[in-house]
Amino acid sequence: MMTAAARGEARRAGARRQGGSLVTSRAGQQPADFTDVRATNLSVVLRFVRANAPCSRADIAASTGLNKATVSSLVAELIERRLVRETGPTERRIGRPATMIVPDGAAYAAIGLEVDSDHLAVVAIDLAGVRLLSWRRAFAGRRATPARAVAAIAALARRAVAAVVDQDREVLGLTVGVAGMVDGDGTVRLSPNLGWRDVPLRDSLVRALDTPAYPVAVENNANLAVRAEHRYGPDAGAANMVYVDGQAAISAGIIANGTLMRGGLGYSGEIGHIPVVADGPPCGCGRRGCLEAVAGIGALVRSLSGREPVDLDPEVDDLLRRARAHEPEVVNALRSAGEHLGYGLSIVANVLNPEVIVLGGYFVPLAPWLLPPAEKRLRECAVAPDAGGCRLTISSLEHSAAATGGAASILDSIDSGALPAAGRARA
Amino acid sequence: MMTAAARGEARRAGARRQGGSLVTSRAGQQPADFTDVRATNLSVVLRFVRANAPCSRADIAASTGLNKATVSSLVAELIERRLVRETGPTERRIGRPATMIVPDGAAYAAIGLEVDSDHLAVVAIDLAGVRLLSWRRAFAGRRATPARAVAAIAALARRAVAAVVDQDREVLGLTVGVAGMVDGDGTVRLSPNLGWRDVPLRDSLVRALDTPAYPVAVENNANLAVRAEHRYGPDAGAANMVYVDGQAAISAGIIANGTLMRGGLGYSGEIGHIPVVADGPPCGCGRRGCLEAVAGIGALVRSLSGREPVDLDPEVDDLLRRARAHEPEVVNALRSAGEHLGYGLSIVANVLNPEVIVLGGYFVPLAPWLLPPAEKRLRECAVAPDAGGCRLTISSLEHSAAATGGAASILDSIDSGALPAAGRARA
Repeated sequence: MMTAAARGEARRAGARRQGGSLVTSRAGQQPADFTDVRATNLSVVLRFVRANAPCSRADIAASTGLNKATVSSLVAELIERRLVRETGPTERRIGRPATMIVPDGAAYAAIGLEVDSDHLAVVAIDLAGVRLLSWRRAFAGRRATPARAVAAIAALARRAVAAVVDQDREVLGLTVGVAGMVDGDGTVRLSPNLGWRDVPLRDSLVRALDTPAYPVAVENNANLAVRAEHRYGPDAGAANMVYVDGQAAISAGIIANGTLMRGGLGYSGEIGHIPVVADGPPCGCGRRGCLEAVAGIGALVRSLSGREPVDLDPEVDDLLRRARAHEPEVVNALRSAGEHLGYGLSIVANVLNPEVIVLGGYFVPLAPWLLPPAEKRLRECAVAPDAGGCRLTISSLEHSAAATGGAASILDSIDSGALPAAGRARA
Repeated sequence: MMTAAARGEARRAGARRQGGSLVTSRAGQQPADFTDVRATNLSVVLRFVRANAPCSRADIAASTGLNKATVSSLVAELIERRLVRETGPTERRIGRPATMIVPDGAAYAAIGLEVDSDHLAVVAIDLAGVRLLSWRRAFAGRRATPARAVAAIAALARRAVAAVVDQDREVLGLTVGVAGMVDGDGTVRLSPNLGWRDVPLRDSLVRALDTPAYPVAVENNANLAVRAEHRYGPDAGAANMVYVDGQAAISAGIIANGTLMRGGLGYSGEIGHIPVVADGPPCGCGRRGCLEAVAGIGALVRSLSGREPVDLDPEVDDLLRRARAHEPEVVNALRSAGEHLGYGLSIVANVLNPEVIVLGGYFVPLAPWLLPPAEKRLRECAVAPDAGGCRLTISSLEHSAAATGGAASILDSIDSGALPAAGRARA
């Protein structure tokens, strides 16, 4: 007799996890029907198996509080949908060996794709989180019109879709990350890096992909990257985390209280314009000495080569070669950039008090030079003792963090109860 | 048979609401017992009544999905605990008039108290959110030792407790806000404004109050103030909100995704040291030109009077008198402070993309002069078009926002299911 109210709570919890926005009173809604309860319990069991595999039906029953007959029926449906599968009985148990359940990676794939000023990257992962493919290609985003960019993104997406369909997998979704401000409709409102303003990327991609059966979403790169770190990185699960994307521009993705913080319109994380150096070099925003203008990769390359960089990859390779040869000009420029970065991050740490700040993108290969001065300056300049406990680390996902996060965001929605339709997998 | 899993979800949802921290897998826990379910449902009904009063038992049943017999039993227990009460049948309904249920304000009181460099304030509210008392007194916090401060805080708390106990109310809790960084144990790690470092305020207060029966908590003032705005302010319920406390120092409380964002150690919101003016006036942090040093009330008074302010109240009154008389020096200083404030808030808006920034404390009386230039500069300097939709408003709670938020935080924990023990109210 208590089920309906508790169920309402469960649904609200799911909504909170998915959207991250405040869920206002839904007290006026009707009680959920039986299908809802079964869907909730299917995702409870799926989440449990994903977190605790291999596990037996009895383990699931004991830990979820669902009775054994219900668990058997739910597991049967998850097997039928190819979301979990049975493995041989385990040996390492006391008592009678039980048939174990593990996530089934074989039937589905989630695809994430990222767009930045100098590259496209695409990652496909299966339901068990195993990476199926990871491709990267140069892309002169700064010179491409939105129409040409859509064509290039769609072409790469089609190749990735074809590759996973060839493996007899169903595509669960495509999430595209962009270096820029993305609104709730998937329109890129502003991307100084790509030179875009009000580009309806999601709609254009859906058209270019001939209105595919899988959902297409568009999100900010740093927001996706921080989800990837939060799911797969060494600090996975940290309740308060910031990912700082070192590209031509500098932006951040923020996890607060365990959930992605998008802000009112999805524009949070624009840390690149924190003022760092009085009367410093000019910034794309029109002011001077912003974090991005003194510690961004574009600014670093510009100051050392005198060139306006288009493709950062070879430029950063050149920087690395010169840094490894101890060229004083390069080593000093990197130290200085690291100090500026650390100062900018001290402001971020003051405002957000994250447990960890993860440096990604081109900051990863440059970390041996950037990290020590950044760490030192962060600790010196933050207001809280010991920078409020904030650690500064390096992403292990390097350039595919946003693409990986794009794919992971699709798995997140499945964990929240949006199971794929049974149709094709059942057939 | 689905109850246990759904119940687990409900409990996790409650934990998320209360703590705001990431709830990691609790899959290993045992199913809850029957008492848990009843407590959950009691708080579901209580929340519904608080949000929808007056309402009938039938309304509660229809909207929560609980059956009518269960609702009657739960309402009876809530009436017995004096958490809700019956009122006369309403006339404005179609059909048979029903006895209506409303929150019962009479039996309990929650007390919030705030400590800043120049004042103490205390607020008591009842369960229906009605303010029972609101007192404010000057307090030379900057000159007081922690021991003297504890004595003064405890004395004010005892007077407030005595006042509500005189009304035959039970005290649900005391939450004390402090202008400083407060850790999870209620120790003030650092308060430049009060000159405190590592002061175990909660433990000292518990001792000074002779280990009272009600819980005592200590939290950062701005964190409490933003909860008050989020609960009672004109933008109540906004999912992404920042409260900026205009005191001698400037700090912020942040609501992200509908919950208080405390950060890893509870030190978030230190926006006072965003660099605003290159080579500006010296700041308490050792650098120059921080937001606090160019737009804080202490800095403003100092620059206009040449005095080091101790009690800001009369100083701000003097400022207001001179501003109203159009003294150019004062009007210009306020315009300049407003511009600096707007620039600092543009950095906050870039990072957090809040829907609304609420100015509180002494910014409230000074708003006619500060707000227009701050608003203009915020819009000019934020990276997102139209400052990402961020509005700049003025708190309606003025100086008691943190005290009100302290009291409200106690009601929040009751809404999350921590109902007061039935003991005294039953007797």
